[in-house]
Amino acid sequence: MATLGDIGVSALINILSAFAFLLAFALLRIQPVNDRVYFPKWYINGGRTSPRGRGGNFVAKFVNLDFKTYLTFLNWMPQALKMSETELINHAGLDSAVFLRIYTLGLKIFVPITVLALLILIPVNVSSGTLFFLRKELVVSDIDKLSISNVRPESIRFFVHIGLEYLFTFWICFMLYKEYDTVATMRLHFLASERRRAEQFTVAVRNVPQIPGHSIADSLDHFFKTNHPDTYLCHQAVYNANKFARLVRKRDRLQNWLDYNQLKFERHPEKRLTKKIGFLGLWGERVDSIDFYKQQIKEFDKQMELERQKVLKDSKSILPVAFVSFKSRWGAAVCAQTQQSKNPTLWLTNWAPEPRDVYWRNLAIPFVSLTIRKTIISISVFALVFFYMIPIAFVQSLANLEGLERVAPFLRPVIELGFIKSFLQGFLPGLALKIFLYILPTILMIMSKIEGHIAISALERRASAKYYYFMLVNVFLGSIVTGTAFQQLHSFLHQPPTQIPRTIGVSIPMKATFFITYIMVDGWAGIAGEILRLKPLVIFHLKNMFLVKTERDREKAMDPGSVDYPETLPSLQLYFLLGIVYAVVTPILLPFILVFFAFAYLVYRHQIINVYNPQYESGAAFWPHVHSRIIASLLISQLLLMGLLSTKKAANSTPLLVVLPVLTLSFHKYCKSRFEPAFRKYPLEEAMAKDLMDQTTEPDINLKAFLADAYLHPIFRSFEEEELVEVRVDKVRVDRHQTYAENAQTRDDLSSSPPHYVHQPTSPPQHSYQPASTPQDVYHHGIAPQYEYNSSSLHYGYHYDAETWTSRD
Amino acid sequence: MATLGDIGVSALINILSAFAFLLAFALLRIQPVNDRVYFPKWYINGGRTSPRGRGGNFVAKFVNLDFKTYLTFLNWMPQALKMSETELINHAGLDSAVFLRIYTLGLKIFVPITVLALLILIPVNVSSGTLFFLRKELVVSDIDKLSISNVRPESIRFFVHIGLEYLFTFWICFMLYKEYDTVATMRLHFLASERRRAEQFTVAVRNVPQIPGHSIADSLDHFFKTNHPDTYLCHQAVYNANKFARLVRKRDRLQNWLDYNQLKFERHPEKRLTKKIGFLGLWGERVDSIDFYKQQIKEFDKQMELERQKVLKDSKSILPVAFVSFKSRWGAAVCAQTQQSKNPTLWLTNWAPEPRDVYWRNLAIPFVSLTIRKTIISISVFALVFFYMIPIAFVQSLANLEGLERVAPFLRPVIELGFIKSFLQGFLPGLALKIFLYILPTILMIMSKIEGHIAISALERRASAKYYYFMLVNVFLGSIVTGTAFQQLHSFLHQPPTQIPRTIGVSIPMKATFFITYIMVDGWAGIAGEILRLKPLVIFHLKNMFLVKTERDREKAMDPGSVDYPETLPSLQLYFLLGIVYAVVTPILLPFILVFFAFAYLVYRHQIINVYNPQYESGAAFWPHVHSRIIASLLISQLLLMGLLSTKKAANSTPLLVVLPVLTLSFHKYCKSRFEPAFRKYPLEEAMAKDLMDQTTEPDINLKAFLADAYLHPIFRSFEEEELVEVRVDKVRVDRHQTYAENAQTRDDLSSSPPHYVHQPTSPPQHSYQPASTPQDVYHHGIAPQYEYNSSSLHYGYHYDAETWTSRD
Repeated sequence: MATLGDIGVSALINILSAFAFLLAFALLRIQPVNDRVYFPKWYINGGRTSPRGRGGNFVAKFVNLDFKTYLTFLNWMPQALKMSETELINHAGLDSAVFLRIYTLGLKIFVPITVLALLILIPVNVSSGTLFFLRKELVVSDIDKLSISNVRPESIRFFVHIGLEYLFTFWICFMLYKEYDTVATMRLHFLASERRRAEQFTVAVRNVPQIPGHSIADSLDHFFKTNHPDTYLCHQAVYNANKFARLVRKRDRLQNWLDYNQLKFERHPEKRLTKKIGFLGLWGERVDSIDFYKQQIKEFDKQMELERQKVLKDSKSILPVAFVSFKSRWGAAVCAQTQQSKNPTLWLTNWAPEPRDVYWRNLAIPFVSLTIRKTIISISVFALVFFYMIPIAFVQSLANLEGLERVAPFLRPVIELGFIKSFLQGFLPGLALKIFLYILPTILMIMSKIEGHIAISALERRASAKYYYFMLVNVFLGSIVTGTAFQQLHSFLHQPPTQIPRTIGVSIPMKATFFITYIMVDGWAGIAGEILRLKPLVIFHLKNMFLVKTERDREKAMDPGSVDYPETLPSLQLYFLLGIVYAVVTPILLPFILVFFAFAYLVYRHQIINVYNPQYESGAAFWPHVHSRIIASLLISQLLLMGLLSTKKAANSTPLLVVLPVLTLSFHKYCKSRFEPAFRKYPLEEAMAKDLMDQTTEPDINLKAFLADAYLHPIFRSFEEEELVEVRVDKVRVDRHQTYAENAQTRDDLSSSPPHYVHQPTSPPQHSYQPASTPQDVYHHGIAPQYEYNSSSLHYGYHYDAETWTSRD
Repeated sequence: MATLGDIGVSALINILSAFAFLLAFALLRIQPVNDRVYFPKWYINGGRTSPRGRGGNFVAKFVNLDFKTYLTFLNWMPQALKMSETELINHAGLDSAVFLRIYTLGLKIFVPITVLALLILIPVNVSSGTLFFLRKELVVSDIDKLSISNVRPESIRFFVHIGLEYLFTFWICFMLYKEYDTVATMRLHFLASERRRAEQFTVAVRNVPQIPGHSIADSLDHFFKTNHPDTYLCHQAVYNANKFARLVRKRDRLQNWLDYNQLKFERHPEKRLTKKIGFLGLWGERVDSIDFYKQQIKEFDKQMELERQKVLKDSKSILPVAFVSFKSRWGAAVCAQTQQSKNPTLWLTNWAPEPRDVYWRNLAIPFVSLTIRKTIISISVFALVFFYMIPIAFVQSLANLEGLERVAPFLRPVIELGFIKSFLQGFLPGLALKIFLYILPTILMIMSKIEGHIAISALERRASAKYYYFMLVNVFLGSIVTGTAFQQLHSFLHQPPTQIPRTIGVSIPMKATFFITYIMVDGWAGIAGEILRLKPLVIFHLKNMFLVKTERDREKAMDPGSVDYPETLPSLQLYFLLGIVYAVVTPILLPFILVFFAFAYLVYRHQIINVYNPQYESGAAFWPHVHSRIIASLLISQLLLMGLLSTKKAANSTPLLVVLPVLTLSFHKYCKSRFEPAFRKYPLEEAMAKDLMDQTTEPDINLKAFLADAYLHPIFRSFEEEELVEVRVDKVRVDRHQTYAENAQTRDDLSSSPPHYVHQPTSPPQHSYQPASTPQDVYHHGIAPQYEYNSSSLHYGYHYDAETWTSRD
């Protein structure tokens, strides 16, 4: 076991490496050449157009020569704190602002707890001195002398620990309540103060029934005109363009290669580049690269043309899903919250996510398969969490040296070298595990995608939940109880339920040193690494070197990314868990967590202000999860303390703790009913108030024009204008086409069928509508992925380009 | 252990007693004097007015002299089957019809299972013959030779059992799916074909915020006019009349005593009756009974007058609860399913129960206390289920003979007599348990009431769930595993989770004989007792003798009651559990269950047609519970079979069973999403269709008149007409009173406050409204509980009298 000295050394190493990262960051960030890596948010916001050191000579464009700035290299910290929360919400959205509040919540919770625990518990534990006298023969760590292990069994001092556990629980619940209240208010205020946005008027309808002889569009129109006669406005059909999107993605990759080759050719015109056309360019006929890629792109263009025609003409490409828009927010709120049809699996309505938040690919999933998909994924997650070691062990057994030699006999002489062999033998088995852990978030994200959620924000929340389970079982429990998760599961199944908290509880104080080291490595040094952005830095410069031809290319290469919630939230919650569990057990761990929260707060505040560009705005929809997982941590800590105390023979005091979980659970239930609806539903009062406000401020807004192509698959933005009008909301200007007469005919048929049409909608369908401002005139850019589209009907100041939506698939 | 012979004797006894009950019933039911006990439903429906044998002499009015009818004494059975299901729904409501479907579902599930199990499993088990050869020294029951116990460990025959478990699970799920589908369709069809009813237009709003300076009525009007401008019609305030109701109940009891004394005096005018006025009439001054009760009633009338004034005038008696009515079903459906306010704990909307289904007393419970109440009751139910033996043992230890002698020393000589002493010592300890079990349903009902549900149907469903848990733990598990529930809980907590199914599974086959006996006693003889209606029979004749003066009194004494769902449903579900668990273990038990289902079906069909008068109509709202409890039985049976097989060392075959619970759970999830919304929500499509139908058939119905006093606390029906108009919906005819001017003033103030009133409701509040038909003119009956009120505005053909609503409190 580690002594205090060991911990000090470890702390020193980690602090030094953190400082090294910070220093590197401080040096790199003031170099103009890195400006787009460390301040992309300002480029996107339009605050900057080119690196700062723009005056001066050629060198000054790439390297900072102003030596005064090197002296103040830590000044990003106060700068990061300058922006107020309101400015932050305007600058980066509510999600980011509330994400930062998790760190301040951590500080608010743990600062008083740390002070109290250190002042009260350390003296109580140290003066007990069991470990000094009773177990001199054991190697006892210094940390243990400060922990609950040092208290004599059956000691009356345990009442201090129990009292503090009560106090801490109440304090944490109080802070959680206040924070939930604040966040819910912030969310409602944010939603109330938003500009008019398409998703406020729109509902996503899934599982539209296919009635033979009627098109989906007709069924939709008929159904909503009947059941929401006063509020229904129009709908946007959803086309299955997944195959087309795949083609675009592939073509894009070819274009990149072409660009790369052309650039290389321009720089060295004397050398024609060639490539082999076989597998991975390893064999086959050698051809001219530029010609090859040009030829390939030409073929792809032909294929895409065919596929585009198919999407547009084939009625099967219209999915039984639609975005239905209403005349008022009230109408949309009503439709989203009510059951529409007698058959509760048809006409499923839900709030539409923001257009940029829609995960288009999942809209094509037939509804019937959703239950099956969810079941399968639940089982897979369970298996992944508890049995993930099995396939890895299998791969490890394959990827040993003998296997390698059999596959690649020519490597044998190299492998047989002594030091390389031992290196590989030590390295290969670990490699499989490392690769697995590196791709784990991707696996979890793919699993969430299979579950079929249609919003990226929902996908990230689900992936984050899965990652949390994994961390809880494999990092927290796995570190405390030895053996793999599978072995734990096995032993838990064969232990009485009352024994489990004891087994875990007993080992908890012993693992404090491990977790302190973990916090320093993962928390301190890891966060310092986060600010350095090493991967984006390298990728940006590589792209800059090989692909960038124009200023727009450089902007594309900038890739600010957004906060990686699926990974960040669960690890953050792990720190809450550690802090809460160890608060009464080994309070010396708390200061380390405090440092983490404070430092991570600064770093993420800086990143959010200067780097990240949120992909979507969910209005802090993740907060209920954060809340309930901190509650879960509380429950875990109470159970484990009970287990720990019962092994300490503190039988008289343990029952006192039984009340706590019950109280905590009721508190959670209360919070759930008090605050959660604010995150799941949209109150009619709110909707009506905003509607009325709109009516007074802008009485004659043309909502249909506003919604015209808000929910168009981004793929269609690359289509010709002629084709575009066909797929837009309600086929505006459909009168240009011969289909109009048929359409009108069908609708008249429907409307004459009694008794459904007694409630006639007050305004007739606006077939002959002409939008006030016609952004369509700008659209002539073909299918090239770098088109120029930035009309007023795009409400997000967000650049829809091919890369954005293809990267989502 | 019981042999087949023992079971035969037990069966004989039970069959004989069942026949005795049936014979008694057959004789009693054809006596004219009992007609109102055995055919009350027909009196209520108006099908009968006086007993059948009306011609003939005086004796024939009381005793059936037509001896031919005695020969056909079992003809109620075919009669009970004659009525078709549609007629049954019209006659007794959907609840009753669907309740009977549970029995037919039992038959449909178990008939094929019984045939298969007996044909396949009995030969497989018997031919194994382990018990014959291996354990001759043990006393083995004959039943065991037919059960799975007889199969040799590690035998390959267990695959037959596993295969059948799979087959049975699929069969049961298939039947459950079909049945859920049918019931959901029946429910929707029933709701669609209902006449116009108040609850279709009405929503119960709880937790209306109290704004200082505004009355609740004003806040309500303002809120709903703003947020539901097109559909809001009016609201009915709820008055806290609980105290007044208590007074009426007490006065009613006095009136009964007065009636009794007067009747006695009329019959024997020579004897003036006297009573002592002290405690329980045991001591105190002796006074004339009739004068005494008359005097008492007079005092009560004064008190009630005061209380009535208080209810009417005191603004505090208006609760923050209201029944809000809408112009259309669509409007009500929207309001019931959406969140109204930013603060999700305010303005809580839910479907209003039927007026006769409202449990008025719980409307006065403040909303904040509901979470706490629910938590406390959950804990209490848990304690009641697992620790109920503790208080009973305590009472038993007090209620022994020594205690009795100390309290009543004069009984000592009697108690000291040998045979009485031994009788009491054997009897007293059991008495406490018997009393507890007898009052258990009442206790559970009180617990449900404390939880604060506002509909009687919901209360009964909750009580039924609690009773089910009690039965599951104390009857099913308690019989299988020895020891009290508390001891079981203790041992389960200290056993590994995998050990529990083993412990229970092993004892299951051994308890088959016990459960066969249980089915015969509780199922066969108990159901035969049900048809006899011994308690109502006795009470009716007692009332007839001592209280009945007029024909209306006789009608009141008739008390048909309704099906006792809180007790019947859980015991029914226990039979499903037994059948499913024993289907593969001891199939010989199945025929006994089949007999129960068939017999109980006949009996309840008869009772529902001829006796019971449902207190409410919930539209089969209990079905999701029935469904999910049968699913739970399936899961239990699978787990126990796994446990049983693992003790049989059938290690190779046991893992095959693991798939089953997963499949069953997914099936349950699917059914939940597919059918449950039909029982919880009201689809807008349906609401709109009914609205449109109404508009075409009755375009100018006055809905406000229709809803005028539908949701008036029944207490107010005893008020004077002058006072009644004050409390009725929206204070119709409020212009008669001086309050009108103030009221109008307040409303104008509200309506002029921008910006909330831009959406003006299309129709102005109808202050000067005069109902087309004025049922109010009938109302002059004072506060006497037997008033004559049966106007057209009472939509239920249901007799609201003092007894009905006081018995609910």
